[in-house]
Amino acid sequence: MKYVKYKVLGMSCGHCKAAVEGELDKLPGVASGADVDRGLVEVSYDEQKVSEEQLEGAIEEAGYKVEA
Amino acid sequence: MKYVKYKVLGMSCGHCKAAVEGELDKLPGVASGADVDRGLVEVSYDEQKVSEEQLEGAIEEAGYKVEA
Repeated sequence: MKYVKYKVLGMSCGHCKAAVEGELDKLPGVASGADVDRGLVEVSYDEQKVSEEQLEGAIEEAGYKVEA
Repeated sequence: MKYVKYKVLGMSCGHCKAAVEGELDKLPGVASGADVDRGLVEVSYDEQKVSEEQLEGAIEEAGYKVEA
């Protein structure tokens, strides 16, 4: 398992948190936790199953931008 | 038809807007539009069918507080 933390822009409320976590957790081998107050998402993932590009894609799919 | 405008606290994003409008629009004879930037919800309603207490109850049901 690997671990990565993203700064996510515009994640402003509990609905946003659920949307971001929901998209991430759809990916195989992924567990995520978003912190709205800090604008962060922490993700643990199995690098055999998904790439960081896929993680970032899931966050964007939920409608948010990952800060570079 | 009557018209009322509420100041709603904590309505921070598009998900919140959808949640508030969704609860209000479930009520018979109600049409609502929320403005996240201004924190306002405008509601037109049929006073034969619903009361203002029900409108405020729907906003609270969605998880938000109406400013007194």
